[in-house]
Amino acid sequence: MEPQRILIQLDPDRHASVFDAVVAIDSNVQHLLQYSDVEPESVRGLVHGAMFTRGPADLKNTAIFVGGSQVSAGEALFKAVRQSFFGPVRCSVMFDGNGANTTAVAAVLSAAKHLPLSGCRSVVLGGTGPVGGRVAKLMARQGSHVCLVSRDLAKAQSACEQILKQIGSTDQAALQACASSDQNALRVALGEAQVVFACGAAGVQLLNRDQLSACPKLKVVIDLNAVPPEGIEGISVMDKAVQRGERFDYGAVGVGGLKMKIHRAAIGKLFTCNDAVLDAEEIFAIGQSL
Amino acid sequence: MEPQRILIQLDPDRHASVFDAVVAIDSNVQHLLQYSDVEPESVRGLVHGAMFTRGPADLKNTAIFVGGSQVSAGEALFKAVRQSFFGPVRCSVMFDGNGANTTAVAAVLSAAKHLPLSGCRSVVLGGTGPVGGRVAKLMARQGSHVCLVSRDLAKAQSACEQILKQIGSTDQAALQACASSDQNALRVALGEAQVVFACGAAGVQLLNRDQLSACPKLKVVIDLNAVPPEGIEGISVMDKAVQRGERFDYGAVGVGGLKMKIHRAAIGKLFTCNDAVLDAEEIFAIGQSL
Amino acid sequence: MEPQRILIQLDPDRHASVFDAVVAIDSNVQHLLQYSDVEPESVRGLVHGAMFTRGPADLKNTAIFVGGSQVSAGEALFKAVRQSFFGPVRCSVMFDGNGANTTAVAAVLSAAKHLPLSGCRSVVLGGTGPVGGRVAKLMARQGSHVCLVSRDLAKAQSACEQILKQIGSTDQAALQACASSDQNALRVALGEAQVVFACGAAGVQLLNRDQLSACPKLKVVIDLNAVPPEGIEGISVMDKAVQRGERFDYGAVGVGGLKMKIHRAAIGKLFTCNDAVLDAEEIFAIGQSL
Repeated sequence: MEPQRILIQLDPDRHASVFDAVVAIDSNVQHLLQYSDVEPESVRGLVHGAMFTRGPADLKNTAIFVGGSQVSAGEALFKAVRQSFFGPVRCSVMFDGNGANTTAVAAVLSAAKHLPLSGCRSVVLGGTGPVGGRVAKLMARQGSHVCLVSRDLAKAQSACEQILKQIGSTDQAALQACASSDQNALRVALGEAQVVFACGAAGVQLLNRDQLSACPKLKVVIDLNAVPPEGIEGISVMDKAVQRGERFDYGAVGVGGLKMKIHRAAIGKLFTCNDAVLDAEEIFAIGQSL
Repeated sequence: MEPQRILIQLDPDRHASVFDAVVAIDSNVQHLLQYSDVEPESVRGLVHGAMFTRGPADLKNTAIFVGGSQVSAGEALFKAVRQSFFGPVRCSVMFDGNGANTTAVAAVLSAAKHLPLSGCRSVVLGGTGPVGGRVAKLMARQGSHVCLVSRDLAKAQSACEQILKQIGSTDQAALQACASSDQNALRVALGEAQVVFACGAAGVQLLNRDQLSACPKLKVVIDLNAVPPEGIEGISVMDKAVQRGERFDYGAVGVGGLKMKIHRAAIGKLFTCNDAVLDAEEIFAIGQSL
Repeated sequence: MEPQRILIQLDPDRHASVFDAVVAIDSNVQHLLQYSDVEPESVRGLVHGAMFTRGPADLKNTAIFVGGSQVSAGEALFKAVRQSFFGPVRCSVMFDGNGANTTAVAAVLSAAKHLPLSGCRSVVLGGTGPVGGRVAKLMARQGSHVCLVSRDLAKAQSACEQILKQIGSTDQAALQACASSDQNALRVALGEAQVVFACGAAGVQLLNRDQLSACPKLKVVIDLNAVPPEGIEGISVMDKAVQRGERFDYGAVGVGGLKMKIHRAAIGKLFTCNDAVLDAEEIFAIGQSL
């Protein structure tokens, strides 16, 4: 008899995410073990409990999901999980702190429906946040020339360096930093862009209607902010490939359906082998295959 | 495929109630998510996780149960749950802190087996406690003339005012307060009563044998105290419609079977729609329909 | 319809054991309720929640497992569980803090495959630890003459007295204490022994190659230490009845398969009645019947 599919939900928050739990159950997880208030030093014991219970052939039915609302705390848990493995006795693990991975992947794949990403020019507003950084990385990896925008130029530059290193690129032109206060540089970048993503904090407007209308080459606009006012003025949270002139517009809910589909497919993927490590790029590949 | 039935158990206690969990599972809940040490400020995030995962058609398969041993802390959570909803994207919720709702409903429905409640005279001992207050409200709502007894007259009067307001009644005679120390008033009330409920603290005797035998009109006596000594002397915890003269007597265990049946039916009701809000009166209606 | 099999996992650790959880699920538990950070004073309420939800005929489908990594804290919980029951309304309970019971049982049953335990001479190194104490007790109960070795003679003597009392024996010769620093006494005991168990702390060598080779009568050597260096030099953690001369050698992993099988069988046993209390000796009987 095939062993039951067990998902171990590791969450840094005081109460493990209901959202992550419901999606897990809707992804055919049979037993969900919820752990809240998890700190990196507790991870090893929990992971070893997953590794040393089932035989090698059955280990693919035990998997780990790291989520919760705090992205960097979750990343520390995800790292601790990976460091707890040694040798082939391991189990699959996915990271999706605050939905950052699945949201970024859904945003980039939404854009990809309307133009080839390779060679396109894109602007990522809020590029130093957890979703923005992932969107910039995925876009750069796909061959887009990305302008990563942040209030803080130094942080934007540091984010760009880190991403270039992660994707193993030495092409500085592939990813350029821009301060949102540098109106001139921003205008130039937006004027050239075919795609713009708004990945800022909830309820913060990053682009107004005038700025948006001054972007003649835009093919896709994606605003991931779900809390009024809009991150990009004029883009509704419900927009899902709404055509306005040459542009296709997406709001947070418009991207949400695909995000959920990707999330569920990624959970499903965990149970197909015992060594999947699903971070942004692996989840992107899953999203592409849908 | 119909989504799995998920119940989110919100509990203010250090350890979420095993009792509530077992009853949930016996009510055909497929996945139980237990949350302990829940405070009102954590509720919104948990409820939004329930609201924003499944589509509208599937939301009736996600529900929330607020329980635990601390009734007023649970009431605060129940309120926070209701305040977390906005618009039609919501899910069903039930409150049964310390079993107060299901116990009160089972007690009142037990009485209703033996006489019409409308127009009857009833005495609720321990009427300012969580079960007593609910019994008094349900009885008043059914048209009984209720005497609500407490050690503290001011608290009894305040409870009566609150209940009259809740049921939208201006008939002061429908619900009268009485101090348990006022032997004369209590004797008069008991002398007229067809039903008496003992809803006091565990292990506290509220009525002795002499007082009980001086109540000529009693048709039903219900003692909800399960810890010796009896809340009403001479009523056994196991009594279940035991006939003594003109009276039918019930103890806590005697009411317990119906209470459990009502609890399970109420949990089942949660999964029939996505907007049920089950407090004392809604649970009473469910109990009536069994 | 048969009620669902519910296991209530009580764990003194900050995070309830993943190991215990996965084994429970693999033992056909249908709903696992995990409780972490459990202290003895919380046990009564949790156990009563298990006792007072299902009718007598169904209580065998609710059971309690006390585990976690801290053996003595777990023993306190196990005691508190047993004290929470009164009368026939109860449910089955198993103790396996840090796997001490199932490990000790698997070690003793591994030895029993190669010689009759009754009348044999055995040495238990690390005999005052949780596994060592259980091995010594099980061996003595089976009629072996046991030498219980510890760094601390007083602790070893006290452990022997306690075990003799527990098994109701007045035969002091059945169980003798030895300080590991007393080279002479240890050499004599090992020289006579047919079985030696190493039950010390992880990563501590208790016997070197020279000492081992000076034991002419050994039939079985069992080293339960899984962390390098070996508890007994020359015994590999993977050894499973590896024959070396007249000896059959076992390492921790070599015993582990049987341990897991016993663990699962014991969980299964919990759900066959509502009054099983599974500690070392009851689990030994289950292991014997496999």
